[in-house]
Amino acid sequence: MSFRINHTHSAARTGVISTPHGDIYTPAFIPVATKATVKTLTPEQIRSTGAQAILSNAYHLYLQPGPDIVDEAGGVAKFENWNGPTYTDSGGFQVMSLGVGFKKVLAMEIADLTEKDIRAAKKDRMARVDEDGVDFRSVIDGSKHRFTPEKSMEIQHQLGADIIFAFDELTTLIDTRQYQENSVARTHRWAKRCLEAHERLSNERSHRPEQQLWGVVQGAQYQDLRRRAARGLMDLDREARAAGHRGFDGFGIGGALEKHSLGTIVGWVTDELPEDKPRHLLGISEPDDIFAAVASGADTFDCVAPTRLGRRGGVYTLDGRLNLKAARFKRDFTPIDAELGGYVSENYTRAYIHHLLKAKEFLAGTLCTMHNLFFVVKLVDSIRHHLEQGTFEEYRDEFMSRYYARS
Amino acid sequence: MSFRINHTHSAARTGVISTPHGDIYTPAFIPVATKATVKTLTPEQIRSTGAQAILSNAYHLYLQPGPDIVDEAGGVAKFENWNGPTYTDSGGFQVMSLGVGFKKVLAMEIADLTEKDIRAAKKDRMARVDEDGVDFRSVIDGSKHRFTPEKSMEIQHQLGADIIFAFDELTTLIDTRQYQENSVARTHRWAKRCLEAHERLSNERSHRPEQQLWGVVQGAQYQDLRRRAARGLMDLDREARAAGHRGFDGFGIGGALEKHSLGTIVGWVTDELPEDKPRHLLGISEPDDIFAAVASGADTFDCVAPTRLGRRGGVYTLDGRLNLKAARFKRDFTPIDAELGGYVSENYTRAYIHHLLKAKEFLAGTLCTMHNLFFVVKLVDSIRHHLEQGTFEEYRDEFMSRYYARS
Repeated sequence: MSFRINHTHSAARTGVISTPHGDIYTPAFIPVATKATVKTLTPEQIRSTGAQAILSNAYHLYLQPGPDIVDEAGGVAKFENWNGPTYTDSGGFQVMSLGVGFKKVLAMEIADLTEKDIRAAKKDRMARVDEDGVDFRSVIDGSKHRFTPEKSMEIQHQLGADIIFAFDELTTLIDTRQYQENSVARTHRWAKRCLEAHERLSNERSHRPEQQLWGVVQGAQYQDLRRRAARGLMDLDREARAAGHRGFDGFGIGGALEKHSLGTIVGWVTDELPEDKPRHLLGISEPDDIFAAVASGADTFDCVAPTRLGRRGGVYTLDGRLNLKAARFKRDFTPIDAELGGYVSENYTRAYIHHLLKAKEFLAGTLCTMHNLFFVVKLVDSIRHHLEQGTFEEYRDEFMSRYYARS
Repeated sequence: MSFRINHTHSAARTGVISTPHGDIYTPAFIPVATKATVKTLTPEQIRSTGAQAILSNAYHLYLQPGPDIVDEAGGVAKFENWNGPTYTDSGGFQVMSLGVGFKKVLAMEIADLTEKDIRAAKKDRMARVDEDGVDFRSVIDGSKHRFTPEKSMEIQHQLGADIIFAFDELTTLIDTRQYQENSVARTHRWAKRCLEAHERLSNERSHRPEQQLWGVVQGAQYQDLRRRAARGLMDLDREARAAGHRGFDGFGIGGALEKHSLGTIVGWVTDELPEDKPRHLLGISEPDDIFAAVASGADTFDCVAPTRLGRRGGVYTLDGRLNLKAARFKRDFTPIDAELGGYVSENYTRAYIHHLLKAKEFLAGTLCTMHNLFFVVKLVDSIRHHLEQGTFEEYRDEFMSRYYARS
């Protein structure tokens, strides 16, 4: 078994995912290393934030430098000098979302979508989905490419991450019910092809460390579709194992989610999924989303928000977010968050980081990124601790009432 | 005494400069932290290259964030979280060179100057020099400012570096002999005003760590002017000390130098200067320049070239320079320089850094900067070692013949 549950607390649980490159104590936040680098940080700096594993994007590494180069380097972890577990996503999200206006953070409210968002989502996505796969254009040079389930598996085997995801179709909150239904059925057929390709590639490449394939549950905001998708993946897993093949070692929960019903939707899915396999919720990092996801039984999460926000000078504190570019920090010689602590708060003032941001110095992004990852990783570590102490709800209520006090 | 000589070898020597923030073993290369950051690096990363001290620019910190803010932070070292000695330059170089085409590396050949360089040097420098000081415009917003010797001292006291420089006029290789003569005389008068202002400010600010003022020797390519300038500073030092005041604790050697006569010019100056005070050569880092400067008795050097080059993907190796952006490194899974070693060569491949450069990832600049500083610091450390072993010439000849073999 590659997953062991330590403790349960209603739907929530703590546990350990084991990989050939080390263990991940869950719940865990997984920083995003899009192009085989958590932007601005060395691996030692990533590690110093407390991060246990990092997630790269198959789409980006396929376009640049190319999966053959990462393969020759010995896999993505060796390529980027990361001495720990790695994930890659399937590329499905990027091939269908990049190049359009499309919001990239998945938890949102339909009511918050502007007319412009909707027009952008409706226009040509630079991608065309058919039964076999997806045609898309590169965001780098506009060149034409095609991903299929088999292609995604080949790329992810070349990238060699410990945990890889089945190729799925990304839908949006504004697609029709009928489209979502057809899409879930297609993602199911693609999942089966992913299992077959994964089995073949794992056998062909047995000299490389064993990789885990995780199926991805779609179904948007519809309970019946979400439950059907989860059960469908479990059927595929059972069939594969009955044939003596590898099945799914975990599950991803994908697709756009309405923020206010995030916990409910994750709950439908985890209610169906087997308890003894880990679940990754793609694309969240806001504290309220993390609390909701954990309470509903999600084990790991990734999101670009803490790193992207940090490069722009946005930082998390226990009292909510700040933007250190604001003029009021010019003479603020206090740490970002003395109570939180960590390398950045222990060594730098808001005034210094404000100066670096105004001067457009690279170090600003490095320091804010380190701080934000430390914040989110520490939050999830604290959640793990409080789950094991039986004080999850008290911790959540205290944290949330302080963090969101101003809003 | 703030300087102790350990060993001499012809005009060259090894020694130790003592400051309130620690010692500097000389010869030493001092990385440039223009705006209170060695671009792309944390202080821990700077330290890991072996660097002992860093040098910031009074001009840049005056414009952004302003010397009052650095003063309130407790000085530049505390502001930037650097636990070691610091230098600031006087601002003279920047007020007179920025905003024009003007080459910024001081060691060059007149023959290499293009018509465009000469036109750029002759056009309005955004600065106007008079007897009292210099009017100039900010490179940030074009606003008008004025530096005088007193103003430079005030700024450098607010910045609070351990070693500060007298305010001098920067001339170019194409100024006339008459202009250079007048300029050296003016720089001498400014040096006297700097000593007086430094004495007053040191007494007024006795709660802050004592700062050393180093005089700056100008005189371009003219032996008589260089020697006259050096002797003039020594006279000022003697007069100040006779009055019970602080004198110069060291000397800078400034101004444009013709590369082929760098050693000769430095030799004229050090021949005049007292043996028991350290000498800083401003703006050099190329291996041949470092060997020539050390052989002629220079003790410390600074230059933006290793860091600026690194951010563009240029890296030093024992066999000369490489640009890692070149396509031939795409599948080069070897280190930048296995023989040299250091953090970057021990942990990353040329192929990975090539990928980061092509993807415009911040980490590329960080890694190449760390590598280049490690290279230059290690070179100067090796020079110190070989001076003490009496094998300086053998080391120089071996290093140079290999490094410049391809040119």
